[in-house]
Amino acid sequence: MTTLVTINPLICEKKMTTTKQLFTHISSDAFLTISLDEVDVPAPKPHEVIVKIEAAPINPSDMWPMFGPANLADATFDASSNKLSAPVHPGILSRIRSRVDQKLPIGNEGAGTVVAAGDSPQAQALMGKTVGVLTGATYTQHCCVPVQACIVHNEGTSARQAASSFVNPLTALCMVETMCREGHTALVHTAAASSLGVMLNKICIAQGISLVNIVRKQEQVDMLSDLGAKYVLNSTSESFKKDLYKAIKETGATLAFDAIGGGNLVSDILSAMEAVGSKDATGFNTYGSAENKQIYVYGNLDFTPTVLNRAYGMTWNIGGWLLMRFLGSLEVKDVLALHKRVADEINTTFALEFSNEISLIDAMKPKNITRYNAKKTGEKFFINPSL
Amino acid sequence: MTTLVTINPLICEKKMTTTKQLFTHISSDAFLTISLDEVDVPAPKPHEVIVKIEAAPINPSDMWPMFGPANLADATFDASSNKLSAPVHPGILSRIRSRVDQKLPIGNEGAGTVVAAGDSPQAQALMGKTVGVLTGATYTQHCCVPVQACIVHNEGTSARQAASSFVNPLTALCMVETMCREGHTALVHTAAASSLGVMLNKICIAQGISLVNIVRKQEQVDMLSDLGAKYVLNSTSESFKKDLYKAIKETGATLAFDAIGGGNLVSDILSAMEAVGSKDATGFNTYGSAENKQIYVYGNLDFTPTVLNRAYGMTWNIGGWLLMRFLGSLEVKDVLALHKRVADEINTTFALEFSNEISLIDAMKPKNITRYNAKKTGEKFFINPSL
Repeated sequence: MTTLVTINPLICEKKMTTTKQLFTHISSDAFLTISLDEVDVPAPKPHEVIVKIEAAPINPSDMWPMFGPANLADATFDASSNKLSAPVHPGILSRIRSRVDQKLPIGNEGAGTVVAAGDSPQAQALMGKTVGVLTGATYTQHCCVPVQACIVHNEGTSARQAASSFVNPLTALCMVETMCREGHTALVHTAAASSLGVMLNKICIAQGISLVNIVRKQEQVDMLSDLGAKYVLNSTSESFKKDLYKAIKETGATLAFDAIGGGNLVSDILSAMEAVGSKDATGFNTYGSAENKQIYVYGNLDFTPTVLNRAYGMTWNIGGWLLMRFLGSLEVKDVLALHKRVADEINTTFALEFSNEISLIDAMKPKNITRYNAKKTGEKFFINPSL
Repeated sequence: MTTLVTINPLICEKKMTTTKQLFTHISSDAFLTISLDEVDVPAPKPHEVIVKIEAAPINPSDMWPMFGPANLADATFDASSNKLSAPVHPGILSRIRSRVDQKLPIGNEGAGTVVAAGDSPQAQALMGKTVGVLTGATYTQHCCVPVQACIVHNEGTSARQAASSFVNPLTALCMVETMCREGHTALVHTAAASSLGVMLNKICIAQGISLVNIVRKQEQVDMLSDLGAKYVLNSTSESFKKDLYKAIKETGATLAFDAIGGGNLVSDILSAMEAVGSKDATGFNTYGSAENKQIYVYGNLDFTPTVLNRAYGMTWNIGGWLLMRFLGSLEVKDVLALHKRVADEINTTFALEFSNEISLIDAMKPKNITRYNAKKTGEKFFINPSL
């Protein structure tokens, strides 16, 4: 049996055996239920720690696991049982077959204090520290995680500051890492005014990497320009295709990360890269420029189909890109170096402002769901399960 | 100065200094001209040989370099100057800018006899042999090529038999090579009733590799089934998507080569691969199956856009695939092993029937162009420049 060792009376919770946690469930008779349940906290194994979660962001990527295709306009909250219910269109059930009739945890990431630790020195060393975690189950008061899955923050960093240590910071860092590993020297990024896009700009400016930002509104152009971004293109501008060609010509970008997915943008970026790659070509040039032109689709903001005109030769690739699968391809020491950078720059490069702090119960109330599910600029919620 | 050494009086052509060769030219005032010109044959360098071309196939891939976007319905042939002329829509010129106002050679591949050789032992060893070549300039009586670019055929193989040594045989072999190198264990192939598709079936049957053939007509299903193909799907059948799922489930294919490009087929194949990969998934499965699902688009039979529904998780890739660029990634010894296999199986695995043998002059006549440009099943032309 592992002993739960504590070092500070304030965070001593020796009697802790259960915790409160949010779960999602979609039944085969087409109902979503979000419930707040009392669950056991496991005793940590030697290389595990127990984290008291104090800030778990509500990210766009949490919405689909949490609510699936439920019709939230018809959601009802029952305060006596602490349950949110909403209907799901039965026709959609087959598309989410893998999750039906299972009670599943929610919340991709979060941060808090290590309140108990397994026997190993590595686990013991984390006692009392603020850590960021990525567990897929952070909408809970306490969770048990392996040491190597924690980003250990520096003294003075609060859980609120550390809440978003993983998804955005590591995605931005790993985009640059992908660029280096695949031999590209500049980047294109779409939906570039996102929190992630801002972080990516800070990283690229600090490292002297050329980044072509594509946004949809003039105020986003202004915001990124004020940040110091050199290339910010408005895709709704009449001169967009010309601007894109010029930016790719100047930067030499042959890699793009696309958060949008649908429409012609992927094809337009490849076409511009090919036009630049072939600008000095002579002869047939039947198969286009020889350099690989790579687009990674990492988001899905536009659900309509991706339309490819294939007018960009034969040396191109379009693929899905997923942070966790990319991280899985790295050596442990490289992952740890990324973790350290996130910790060191959590209040600068990776700073994120939250507008609303809510409790686990509040996260289940339809009026709050309507607000955080709207993903409005300037409205960013996090759950504090200890409220 | 390199000496032209010959070993056989019959192929002794010591006085050869010029040869006849077809060229294509599109002018900036929007006219295509195909001409038969007398050009110098260079003296071979130590590692080069002079090949007397006796059979150069007219492949679909030769059509675009040869004619570009010219309106061949209005083509005229002038017998006195040996020139074919045809108008080009001026609006298209900007899209073929790289080739405008240049006289360019044509003919991707061909075969013939080595009639002169450079000083090196490797070049000398080829004297008198039948070789296949891939030069992009085979519609000529003689051409000068490096030894390592020749496929050296066995005694008894004729130039006609060796004419198509490169494009189809090496493409089929390199598809299997790609499969092995990228860790896949089965293949999907579209437009599978092509000459290339037949070769791929023979290779896969011989090597025990599962191949899912996708065709568009019942007679193509019958043809490939008669050849011994186990999986032949008709994409016009009502049960196509179900058949595709079943075939991918049975074979475990996670790689497809697509010759079509346009439409929904790429997306349908990825969706079937994902459905198989996720058939036993539980929980959210938000990002789909972890195994890479790869489609290579190597042809362009359907010029309409590729439409991707992206309903196949996040671990997928779609890219262009080009034989020459793949070959360039291989070690020389591996390329030579492929060459030897082509030579050894040129009358079996890689056998190709020609229906029409024509001269260089005949290849310029509108009535012949209409026929070979129609790419009809059972009509396959080659040029014999020595006629």
